[in-house]
Amino acid sequence: MTISQNDYPMTPIGKIECPYEEKFAVPRQPGLVPSIQGTVIIEPPFHDPAAFMGLEDFSHLWLLFRFHQNLPQGWKPSVRPPRLGGNKKIGVFATRSSFRPNGLGMSAVQLLDIEFASQQTRLTIAGMDLVSGTPIYDIKPYIAYSDAIAEAKSGFVAGPPTATSVTFSPDVEHWFSHHSLSMAITKSQLIEILSQDPRPAYRKSQSVDSKEYGISLSGLNIKWCAKPHGIVVLSIDAHKNKTPKK
Amino acid sequence: MTISQNDYPMTPIGKIECPYEEKFAVPRQPGLVPSIQGTVIIEPPFHDPAAFMGLEDFSHLWLLFRFHQNLPQGWKPSVRPPRLGGNKKIGVFATRSSFRPNGLGMSAVQLLDIEFASQQTRLTIAGMDLVSGTPIYDIKPYIAYSDAIAEAKSGFVAGPPTATSVTFSPDVEHWFSHHSLSMAITKSQLIEILSQDPRPAYRKSQSVDSKEYGISLSGLNIKWCAKPHGIVVLSIDAHKNKTPKK
Repeated sequence: MTISQNDYPMTPIGKIECPYEEKFAVPRQPGLVPSIQGTVIIEPPFHDPAAFMGLEDFSHLWLLFRFHQNLPQGWKPSVRPPRLGGNKKIGVFATRSSFRPNGLGMSAVQLLDIEFASQQTRLTIAGMDLVSGTPIYDIKPYIAYSDAIAEAKSGFVAGPPTATSVTFSPDVEHWFSHHSLSMAITKSQLIEILSQDPRPAYRKSQSVDSKEYGISLSGLNIKWCAKPHGIVVLSIDAHKNKTPKK
Repeated sequence: MTISQNDYPMTPIGKIECPYEEKFAVPRQPGLVPSIQGTVIIEPPFHDPAAFMGLEDFSHLWLLFRFHQNLPQGWKPSVRPPRLGGNKKIGVFATRSSFRPNGLGMSAVQLLDIEFASQQTRLTIAGMDLVSGTPIYDIKPYIAYSDAIAEAKSGFVAGPPTATSVTFSPDVEHWFSHHSLSMAITKSQLIEILSQDPRPAYRKSQSVDSKEYGISLSGLNIKWCAKPHGIVVLSIDAHKNKTPKK
């Protein structure tokens, strides 16, 4: 190979903080769960307000990041996209799979606010598909005239995945009625997230799935199951191990 | 900073070969010069045909690359975009400037063909805005439903730049009439490239520009100047120092 390897180091400019505490809960593409907000925290020396001048005039931006949880596992030439039911193999370069050479990811997200503090700059965003803590390596403005190719033929990814119906158990309805003021998550946000049906493809293809699933979101443990008519949320509790110490 | 630096190395998966032999000739965004084709050459071990299965069903792809010629110069918090006449400062994160932290670039290009050879995979693309030799770090399929945000508000980049008129001197007309069969570049391709007016912003703002410019494209030296009515191509010659040795 004639190209020199590892030619220049990469340094994160910051990281994302958002309700997706684990990979399981993360939407499969950006924009699928638009109501969930997160914060990109830019750290010194990249937080310089001069570096963000004019960004407020853009409605969307690109985040370039690394799938840091998967990097140690390396890449695979072919993957089984959930979209194809987990049965068909597709080349990694024909997917947005996280098990890819260099582990780079990119997502277009909505930009809602920019805040400057003395030791960090905070960008409020919505619609991200990143797990909280993901290191960010670049931010670029979304430029519609060159980035938006509406007529692009997108292979096996013809459009957004079909949304699954989501209902709540009486316990969960009760929880929401008692936590409506200090809420980490709203009912409609939870519906948006779970309507993506985060189960692995092989589980979705089972006619009966008796497993109870749990996801961590914004400090909450959310238990749910998949019935033939859709997803049922069974219970919501605060993380036991995350109670703030006095 | 709590994030560990330089956590994982970056390895180019290949490089691009295209007519843009120097930065000066490169269009300012992808898609502006759609008639010019290039080749992404993927080298071992990334050239594995399995890694590209299904990519042929996508009309466009993203190239993730590094602005390798600018990396040693580092980044600047603010830049003066040519689009704003080179007078107004904008934050680097509000631009697609190449002088940015980590020097990462991304471009959506058209995918025309995929060819597998024993020691490389070759992707024929069109509409790139990269200088020949740029190292490529990832290829991702363009997914219209999440990547194409046609309604995005794009700050100071309202649309494609205005095209400048391009005419040819009698010498150049003569050159084209004698090189029509073995042509490295066609008249319409040269018009597409030069109609972007690659001059720096401070030159464009001069009422009279008496400088003679040269660009290198596909092994040709192309001399041109800027008149009030547009760009005039003065001469075309093969590189003297690039004649293949026997």
